[in-house]
Amino acid sequence: MTKLIDFQTDPSRYRHWRVSYDGDIATVAMDVNENGGLFEGYLLKLNSYDLGVDIELADVVQRMRFEHPEVRTVVMRSGKERVFCAGANIKMLGVASHAHKVNFCKFTNETRNTYEAASADSGQKYICAVRGACAGGGYELAIACDYIILADDGSSTVSLPEVPLLAVLPGTGGLTRVTDKRKVRRDLADVFCSTEEGVKGRRAKEWNLVDEIVPNSKFDAIVAQRAREFADGSARKVAGPGVALTPVQRKIGDDGSVAYSLVDVAVDRAARRATITLAGPAGDAPVSVAALHSEGAQTYLLRLARELDDAILHLRLNEDQIGLLIFRSQGDPGQVVAHEQFLLDHRTDWFANEILLYWKRVLKRIDVTSRSLCALVEHGSCFAGVLAELLFAVDRSFMMNGAFDGDNRPPATITLGPSNFGAYPMGNGLTRLQTRFYGTPETIDALAETNGKALLADAAETHGLVTYAPDDVDWEDAVRLFLEERASFSPDAMTGMEANLRFAGPETMETRIFGRLTAWQNWIFQRPNAVGEDGALKRYGSGVRGNFNMQRV
Amino acid sequence: MTKLIDFQTDPSRYRHWRVSYDGDIATVAMDVNENGGLFEGYLLKLNSYDLGVDIELADVVQRMRFEHPEVRTVVMRSGKERVFCAGANIKMLGVASHAHKVNFCKFTNETRNTYEAASADSGQKYICAVRGACAGGGYELAIACDYIILADDGSSTVSLPEVPLLAVLPGTGGLTRVTDKRKVRRDLADVFCSTEEGVKGRRAKEWNLVDEIVPNSKFDAIVAQRAREFADGSARKVAGPGVALTPVQRKIGDDGSVAYSLVDVAVDRAARRATITLAGPAGDAPVSVAALHSEGAQTYLLRLARELDDAILHLRLNEDQIGLLIFRSQGDPGQVVAHEQFLLDHRTDWFANEILLYWKRVLKRIDVTSRSLCALVEHGSCFAGVLAELLFAVDRSFMMNGAFDGDNRPPATITLGPSNFGAYPMGNGLTRLQTRFYGTPETIDALAETNGKALLADAAETHGLVTYAPDDVDWEDAVRLFLEERASFSPDAMTGMEANLRFAGPETMETRIFGRLTAWQNWIFQRPNAVGEDGALKRYGSGVRGNFNMQRV
Repeated sequence: MTKLIDFQTDPSRYRHWRVSYDGDIATVAMDVNENGGLFEGYLLKLNSYDLGVDIELADVVQRMRFEHPEVRTVVMRSGKERVFCAGANIKMLGVASHAHKVNFCKFTNETRNTYEAASADSGQKYICAVRGACAGGGYELAIACDYIILADDGSSTVSLPEVPLLAVLPGTGGLTRVTDKRKVRRDLADVFCSTEEGVKGRRAKEWNLVDEIVPNSKFDAIVAQRAREFADGSARKVAGPGVALTPVQRKIGDDGSVAYSLVDVAVDRAARRATITLAGPAGDAPVSVAALHSEGAQTYLLRLARELDDAILHLRLNEDQIGLLIFRSQGDPGQVVAHEQFLLDHRTDWFANEILLYWKRVLKRIDVTSRSLCALVEHGSCFAGVLAELLFAVDRSFMMNGAFDGDNRPPATITLGPSNFGAYPMGNGLTRLQTRFYGTPETIDALAETNGKALLADAAETHGLVTYAPDDVDWEDAVRLFLEERASFSPDAMTGMEANLRFAGPETMETRIFGRLTAWQNWIFQRPNAVGEDGALKRYGSGVRGNFNMQRV
Repeated sequence: MTKLIDFQTDPSRYRHWRVSYDGDIATVAMDVNENGGLFEGYLLKLNSYDLGVDIELADVVQRMRFEHPEVRTVVMRSGKERVFCAGANIKMLGVASHAHKVNFCKFTNETRNTYEAASADSGQKYICAVRGACAGGGYELAIACDYIILADDGSSTVSLPEVPLLAVLPGTGGLTRVTDKRKVRRDLADVFCSTEEGVKGRRAKEWNLVDEIVPNSKFDAIVAQRAREFADGSARKVAGPGVALTPVQRKIGDDGSVAYSLVDVAVDRAARRATITLAGPAGDAPVSVAALHSEGAQTYLLRLARELDDAILHLRLNEDQIGLLIFRSQGDPGQVVAHEQFLLDHRTDWFANEILLYWKRVLKRIDVTSRSLCALVEHGSCFAGVLAELLFAVDRSFMMNGAFDGDNRPPATITLGPSNFGAYPMGNGLTRLQTRFYGTPETIDALAETNGKALLADAAETHGLVTYAPDDVDWEDAVRLFLEERASFSPDAMTGMEANLRFAGPETMETRIFGRLTAWQNWIFQRPNAVGEDGALKRYGSGVRGNFNMQRV
């Protein structure tokens, strides 16, 4: 799988989803093109999916929020007659590398989270209308929705057959959402998750696997009625027009480097690291909401978010030998603050609000990226407000302290704004500052008083905002030694260590999915019982069950 | 490693720990016998440990609570001059099977939890006095204590060098306790956990890795002073005398079966299951606190807890092909309730209280046991009060419904008592009923009204207390089909599924350790970068670093 995976798409290129609009109700129909797999070697039968299908879905959800703000309810359904969705394509899983499988699951999890976020943060409610088999990843598509309607026709079922059929776990949050969101009784959840054939009709409703069962004859009418009710019940009062998400401008080099308009990704494969440099705004913040809308997708903070998001995904899937991401920035911190403050001041405008909410998602994507993350706060940098969040997302940070020989850029500073105290919560429900100072909340009160002030290295270090603040004499060695050391460690140990240290304190359904469930799934994805020659994943479809080593671990 | 691992020991047999008592202060000195490893092939140098060392420590902690109730402070220190503890023995980890490593880590985690529980539940405070190197599992011994004193002598250090040195994670809660208990800032935790040489002196204090640093000249005096202060500050006001934990009576058969006095473990290796049958009390509950003390370790609920605890550990470590544990009981439910009610009514007595607290730990051990668990509620059974908790710990349960041909035993019932509503919280902080009915708390209110009433199968099923309640016609097939099906599944997938479904809702430091951290550790313990021929764990001590596949997952 060395083909470059492209996370950019648009409706004109969709092969697997059909989207239609009717006032404030949108319908998203899954109609996977069998021959449209991302790679060779498998057919996407029965609405099964691979990463390419999910990239389109992520695009659908994203465009719904920006291009179709008038939408209050999204109905997700199948575009095929007899099947809702058969889940992730098993043949694809059978041939994919371990790293691809894990990153595929991570992305699909993030995509499920985006429509839960669309509902929670923007009042775009998702209804899932299930007719036919809804299995595995298909049911995981459904339980990320707000409401599930199941056809009561004797053949439509919901199921999570991964364990009995494939000897792996449902990889897209299924186990966690069954107990924590659907609140299915744990012994019934155990039955459900070990039953190949799934559950249908009345029992599916009784166990709370679905919200409503409806005879086939009334199915379309009830779905339409519920869509209308959810739309009417939504607090969302936005008419549009939307903002077109015009193509992200970028140029990908043969060495994996990417040049965007505001983001530069320099890939050094030999050293196993990538340097991501973010540029500050070239101009002033918009002067009015009308001006913001007229800038559209080109407005600084939206453009930067889209480019950064794409860069992270590109590195995750296309550059798996890169163990370390280094964040840099160059620009005017005052301008960054001004652009962000404009959005914060105009959150009642849906578009301003959506840009801030998008940053919340981009930052969360960085939090769960399994690469060592570090930040270099250099002279001339603009780690202010939302960009300062990157400093609290990384595992370590270095900040230039004092004058550097021959460096005439403005001295390195960090500027906190109001957004750092609440606008971008992590998956654990805390701000990045709350997570960082989990033991000393009083530190955060002291930081709140620096609001808007550009802190030099000594102050930043005293406040605990950076790990190290070396001067001209020490900087180069300190950074170089860290980068070399980090690149020498076992990447597996780094992945495990970072997954544990990044999320102090409380857990949520989201962190449970990325932490507990993902870790177990990664473990099982390694085990011969699943992926060995005689494992269930390899043998699937052969008519022969997996041959298991029965030792319990 | 086919030698039978015995979890029973007593002070006369200790090889690795020395315990001394001085009024309300006990000193536990780690002085590992190099030649005392549980298996051949490694020396336990530098106070490094294997499972055998930890079995003794668990015994120390357990006896402290029962045999030495006068103790208010326990000082943990090294019995060797230049080293506190080098952590888990690397050579042992290098030769141990994956299953042994995982179960070893699970048991050491449970042991660390027992002294945290002794502090939280019984006011026996643990102080760790660290002089010399305190590395890896050594530091994990320390951070489970309430207070850490580190010698400030230029050479005493604390460290978690697993990641840089061995390419695995600290396996006994280290990563979680660093951020969640010690509340070390996450970037400093990152530095600490990737630094082979560890941290000493002032920096160890500043980062909150230890509570106090003390020059060598004052070390013993300050340790003694702090021990005195903690003892004086403890709410514990118990003088003793203690209750001797006399040897557990049992007979282990060649087929792995074990006959205890109240517990029978029937092992069926061919079918890969073990049936654990618990007997009800043979006599009445004690009539007075004095009578309880005079029964001592023979009192019904203590004897049962010790036997059940031993049975679970035996099966975990010695019977790793057994995938399913089946809980049965036979006896008078009214008597079980009476025995437990006596303890609940006399919790002000330290011994009565300790028996209940021990059950809390035994039940938690069952919760995190990586085997499928089921319960058969048959006629003549006594699933009442504390024994009913087993029904809510298992993954599935079956209850006999109505008369069974030729079966003259009293009909199957389930009796809830006050203990089911709070006495035995799970690691997630909820009762097992709260976890079971996470979505329908009103169910619990309805159950509270059944208090003390023996519920027949129909009522138990209606209340959601059992998964299935088949009648005479269906029972045998229902149970048989389940047992056969469960035994056919991939044990890895079962382990992962159960670890996720058993703990709905909130997470705590404890569940984070068993869920998130353990899963990642299990994953890394599989990876060639750690355990392959060129992996760091195999190469340790050879002078050659691990050769890593640098793909990031």
